[in-house]
Amino acid sequence: MSVTYPNGFRASGITAGFKLSGRPDLALLVADDGSTAAGVFTTNTFAAAPVRLCRERLGDGRARAVVVNSGQANAGTGSDGDDDAHVTSAAVARALGAPDEEVLPCSTGVIGARIPVRTMTAAIPKLVEGLSAAGGNAFAEAIMTTDTVPKMAHAESGPYRVGGCAKGVGMIRPDLATMLTFLTTDAPVASAHLRKLTASVLEPAFESLTVDGCSSTNDTVLLLASGAAGSDPVRPDSPEWEDLHAAVEEVAQSLLSQLAADAEGVHHVLEVSVTGASTDEDARTVARAIAESLLVKTAAFGGDPNPGRFLQAIGSSGVPFVPEDVRGGLGDVVVIDKGAIPPTWDKQAAQEVMKEPRIPVSVELGSGTGRARMLGSDLSYEYVRINAEYTT
Amino acid sequence: MSVTYPNGFRASGITAGFKLSGRPDLALLVADDGSTAAGVFTTNTFAAAPVRLCRERLGDGRARAVVVNSGQANAGTGSDGDDDAHVTSAAVARALGAPDEEVLPCSTGVIGARIPVRTMTAAIPKLVEGLSAAGGNAFAEAIMTTDTVPKMAHAESGPYRVGGCAKGVGMIRPDLATMLTFLTTDAPVASAHLRKLTASVLEPAFESLTVDGCSSTNDTVLLLASGAAGSDPVRPDSPEWEDLHAAVEEVAQSLLSQLAADAEGVHHVLEVSVTGASTDEDARTVARAIAESLLVKTAAFGGDPNPGRFLQAIGSSGVPFVPEDVRGGLGDVVVIDKGAIPPTWDKQAAQEVMKEPRIPVSVELGSGTGRARMLGSDLSYEYVRINAEYTT
Repeated sequence: MSVTYPNGFRASGITAGFKLSGRPDLALLVADDGSTAAGVFTTNTFAAAPVRLCRERLGDGRARAVVVNSGQANAGTGSDGDDDAHVTSAAVARALGAPDEEVLPCSTGVIGARIPVRTMTAAIPKLVEGLSAAGGNAFAEAIMTTDTVPKMAHAESGPYRVGGCAKGVGMIRPDLATMLTFLTTDAPVASAHLRKLTASVLEPAFESLTVDGCSSTNDTVLLLASGAAGSDPVRPDSPEWEDLHAAVEEVAQSLLSQLAADAEGVHHVLEVSVTGASTDEDARTVARAIAESLLVKTAAFGGDPNPGRFLQAIGSSGVPFVPEDVRGGLGDVVVIDKGAIPPTWDKQAAQEVMKEPRIPVSVELGSGTGRARMLGSDLSYEYVRINAEYTT
Repeated sequence: MSVTYPNGFRASGITAGFKLSGRPDLALLVADDGSTAAGVFTTNTFAAAPVRLCRERLGDGRARAVVVNSGQANAGTGSDGDDDAHVTSAAVARALGAPDEEVLPCSTGVIGARIPVRTMTAAIPKLVEGLSAAGGNAFAEAIMTTDTVPKMAHAESGPYRVGGCAKGVGMIRPDLATMLTFLTTDAPVASAHLRKLTASVLEPAFESLTVDGCSSTNDTVLLLASGAAGSDPVRPDSPEWEDLHAAVEEVAQSLLSQLAADAEGVHHVLEVSVTGASTDEDARTVARAIAESLLVKTAAFGGDPNPGRFLQAIGSSGVPFVPEDVRGGLGDVVVIDKGAIPPTWDKQAAQEVMKEPRIPVSVELGSGTGRARMLGSDLSYEYVRINAEYTT
């Protein structure tokens, strides 16, 4: 029930030999009759070679295939990396009988490591042979790196289906996209309208997740529409548009929740909601200041309902507000009132909230109607262990 | 050899009973014949009551005394906190026969906790009685919270002395000042010129340290000049100005190094130097992106010379540069060249650099002449333990 849930897509995932572990590491998604396509990408200035190539190839809004290798990020690899992305995606195009420009390459893994081109080329026949309309799960598994589980979701919208999968457990922050996420639909949508859907649903959705505040060189979200389920295009003025919008949003939110729940070393997910900011952007800044604060993240890990740390994080955001107007809560427990920590705040009730797998944090700034929501993770010993021992 | 190294100052530090541990927790610095004074403070919107009072009282540029309690931050305490700061500093003023406006209060400890006024008032006679020209060390010890060692420094500048001390191991970031730092000199400097010295030396110095990216509600740096060592004022056009400038800088830099070396759970200090940015501000942004990156901090803890994480952090800074012009080094080892990780980078030599207590990281952006330096700390299991278990 992943990217092949909608009609018009086949997928496969195999072990090509990129990973020392021997786990699946090469994935292919194909729209046999072609698809429209749109994407959002990392804002990191050192965007990986495949990201740059994808951006370029999405210029015409069409795609036949997406090929993903896991193990090497092909980032920080200079012009050699560009060559590798071209050569390997051209080999996939040839095997599919598709134009080079319609193959979108993605890579995830160690930054600075090049794609082993020969390993890739040798694996392509098996990869293409494995393509099937039930291949979504294999695809979702082959794109994983340190993920502990594959992340998959699907939804329906009238006659249309939406499917998706994602990978990513660290180096995730809301500067756009979260590692690799792929969504598909069999609704017929022109590429210009697919871009609109991406901008209005996927960009804000993937900006509301932060694990470690680190923006990857490879973050990519792609949305492909095969059109296999209908002939009349769904447009912003179609009656079906809102439903399709909702279905894409549902799949995206499900994938985001799964990503947050599988964040490196996570014990608790922080669900931060900020209201009453002057603008939505200000609200997002405050939400992010809280979700990325090391002191909030360690407090969440320690189960310590520490209002001072929330207060500190809100105040350090740089967003203008009147301190005396600020109210903050942990679940239903008021821990900041009129900009101060009430002497009688209910520590015991707050401690219970901190035990939840998902800790709801709310802040009302009292300045306007701007609002934002952000998912974050706590900071645990395991996070440190994973990242002190693993070469990203 | 702390704040009482210069003439014209006496200090004391005692156990008043603010801390459960029974360690010294109340400190007093007095300039018997008065002093000029200037300060820099946290930019946190939830600035603590004592910070707000200090700012107000420094309006006339004069101070007779600084009183510091450790254990309660008196932040997030609303108007009650303002009252407490007024009442306790007034009690100190009365005991010294000084005007209220010339007593500068500082607090550090748990946010949301009020100063126990009665405990404070009861301790003042002993505090004043303990004042001595050799009291700098006792002062430096009484302002500590989770610091493992007191931080003290001194320097000379011709006939003038400069002394200082600092505290702070977490919730430190370069949005101004680093927890509490006090500098004194016996040079005669008019308050307007003392402000100039503060802006040109202390502000940039204390903006170049980050431990956890968390800007405290209480960060304060104060500089007091007793004038006890001379009668002719030192002015920006005096021949002694440059030397005095250098001595203040020397003391500040020494305190910064000591703060970084005592950061919570620190194993390695990151010494990040960025050159070739379009502006100094851009350079600072990149330096901070590196020093605050969780992936860089955990790599530093793990001793892993991971060029990909440095590349990622530089690229995520949002600062404009041409990727192909970027060069990066760990000590003398080139780990980024022409914007890519050289296939032959010397991993073994880089691993040796990562073992240093102070890891030198250099980045040349190739865009201009902007430069910045930033001290940061690694992220260890101890950091997580300290902050998951301690109520700040």
